[in-house]
Amino acid sequence: MRKVAVIAIGYTKVKEHWGLSIRDLFTEAAIMALNEVTIDRVDALYVGNMSSGYCQHQEHLGALMADYIGLKSPPAVKIEAAGASGGMALREGFQAVASGLHDFVIVGGVEKMSDVLTPDITYAMAMAADQEYEAFIGVTFAALNAMIKRAYQHKFGVSDELMATLPVHCHDMASKNPYAQYPFKITVEQVLSSPFVAEPLRLLECSSPADGAAILILCPLEKAKEFTDTPIEIVGVGAATDAIALYQRDDLTTFKATIEATNIAYKMAHIKPEEVDVAEIHDSFSVTGVISLEDLGFFEKGTAAKAISEGEIAPGGKIAVNTFGGLKARGHPIGATGVYQAVEIVKQLRGEAGKNQVDNAEIGLTQNIGGVGGTVTVHIFRRVR
Amino acid sequence: MRKVAVIAIGYTKVKEHWGLSIRDLFTEAAIMALNEVTIDRVDALYVGNMSSGYCQHQEHLGALMADYIGLKSPPAVKIEAAGASGGMALREGFQAVASGLHDFVIVGGVEKMSDVLTPDITYAMAMAADQEYEAFIGVTFAALNAMIKRAYQHKFGVSDELMATLPVHCHDMASKNPYAQYPFKITVEQVLSSPFVAEPLRLLECSSPADGAAILILCPLEKAKEFTDTPIEIVGVGAATDAIALYQRDDLTTFKATIEATNIAYKMAHIKPEEVDVAEIHDSFSVTGVISLEDLGFFEKGTAAKAISEGEIAPGGKIAVNTFGGLKARGHPIGATGVYQAVEIVKQLRGEAGKNQVDNAEIGLTQNIGGVGGTVTVHIFRRVR
Repeated sequence: MRKVAVIAIGYTKVKEHWGLSIRDLFTEAAIMALNEVTIDRVDALYVGNMSSGYCQHQEHLGALMADYIGLKSPPAVKIEAAGASGGMALREGFQAVASGLHDFVIVGGVEKMSDVLTPDITYAMAMAADQEYEAFIGVTFAALNAMIKRAYQHKFGVSDELMATLPVHCHDMASKNPYAQYPFKITVEQVLSSPFVAEPLRLLECSSPADGAAILILCPLEKAKEFTDTPIEIVGVGAATDAIALYQRDDLTTFKATIEATNIAYKMAHIKPEEVDVAEIHDSFSVTGVISLEDLGFFEKGTAAKAISEGEIAPGGKIAVNTFGGLKARGHPIGATGVYQAVEIVKQLRGEAGKNQVDNAEIGLTQNIGGVGGTVTVHIFRRVR
Repeated sequence: MRKVAVIAIGYTKVKEHWGLSIRDLFTEAAIMALNEVTIDRVDALYVGNMSSGYCQHQEHLGALMADYIGLKSPPAVKIEAAGASGGMALREGFQAVASGLHDFVIVGGVEKMSDVLTPDITYAMAMAADQEYEAFIGVTFAALNAMIKRAYQHKFGVSDELMATLPVHCHDMASKNPYAQYPFKITVEQVLSSPFVAEPLRLLECSSPADGAAILILCPLEKAKEFTDTPIEIVGVGAATDAIALYQRDDLTTFKATIEATNIAYKMAHIKPEEVDVAEIHDSFSVTGVISLEDLGFFEKGTAAKAISEGEIAPGGKIAVNTFGGLKARGHPIGATGVYQAVEIVKQLRGEAGKNQVDNAEIGLTQNIGGVGGTVTVHIFRRVR
């Protein structure tokens, strides 16, 4: 199996892009990445996306985007795994290079939800849940996560105030990130006075519908130095699934798929959780992020929210997390999110994270979730000396 | 890169499955395949599917199907490339094993269109075309292919009678295939007296909406003999894309992506077209199949329909094609089609094709198209001696 590196990145600002189509967004991010390196061909393209069929009435995104960004007829495909579509696209791109089948692979993620009305976005999101046993009954995606929050707070006795600290942290980080959807600070008081989306989840604990696209260009590590002075190696790749319907779970306060994916990735990378310098985790809702910080091995069960309140995930703390704002504040363009996370880790490990830079970051991790923990991908990245 | 073999197959009958859900269909096919071999784990799952978001309001099919067929939390993902979703899923599964990342991989394809009304199926099919430049204007998927047929007949002076010979051949083959959607013979006269779907394409020249699921289990070739006496090696893997909108094409009478994908696959397999004993090609419409026979290198441009009329693609002819009925008569459950094709080649190379068996078949080929030639995958299979 060949070693694989990221040699270029691209991304758009995350926001409601009323003036750009889904193909425009993808192209903007791809051009940024293609301008970073001089390569004479692209061997394959992966497009992470969840809802183009529903929101744009457009499938066949692989071939469409390959043509639209000017590639010369590479194999191209859309990868769908709900909110983990981007992470799974990266995984497939990794395999394409690792296998020896391809040298230069573009991994992209794109989502454009603002082409449909808000009720339709709610409807599209619910397709990540179990249609027959959950969505059909009328439960929304936020409501499923609200049940998780209630179970988590009940089991561990964590206060509303502590749960609010993750979104506050993420907005702090996003306030210095020009491409973030919400580049401003918020307070715990604002979180706790924002309206309920699905009790006990309040508006400022939930990521919002967003449009955006992000791109990575991969190649074999051995060739990477020909194209960039700062290649970033992908040293760990883990993914796992779980029953997507909550009624099938033994425990709502941990995501089994995160634990499995994490173990695989750590083992492959030969590292321990405490060696990770910077992590981008999937905080689609406050509780999702809190649970993830624990499942990833960074904090003991039930203690992550308290650790956040003590500054442990801020730069300079135990581990820097969501340094560009995470899903809550950088934004969560569903199928693009996993790729944004990887882009941000690459920026950190290159030392190009600007005001968000973590000192001397060497090892980074991304965790991307589909549904309510139904699919989880974990990737570990390392600076090449 | 490790060598890869198919060790088990499964499939459902192709028809309108009013009594089964999309997950039931997938499970039925998966159980058949899992009953063929005794393996103690599955490392990854790929699900080829185009329209579950639109037809079932269900995305996240990877995790859903992994759980539903009883797997223990493997990485799982949906692969979408319109009508080539199944072929692209096989390609990803191949890479997963070839890379060394996984040993036992299930590649499935599934589509259930009968959950929505016929106009909605027409609408779903158009998502394989370019939404902004084609579908939005009102052109149907059949109409796009009708333009191809008109251009082809005009350029090469091929009669309606000759174009009708491919569906007649496919129905001949399907008449001996118990899992075919249309297991009965038709005549050229019946084709030419059937109503126009989109002039000059008549009803009996077009594949129909269908439900079905098909499964392959892959593992490294070196381990394959532990699980089956008749492993079938995947010796060639090619894929390519083209602009999906017809207005961007230089020539409507050939599919550039087929030619590119074919060249890659032949080169990797170290074979020439004349060495292929049996092929399953993508005859979604009569003209699509005729053009494919030429693009694959089996017949000169403009001559395939005449060759069909002379028995050249029947068993005993130059090359046996669509021996189970092809898309026209076995049926075309969109995202499952590419996997059905591979299943059928495996049956032929194992010598388990029953009344449809081609004598001493050693090398088989599948060609799977997404959209109107926007994505093409070609796989070459070889019997292991």
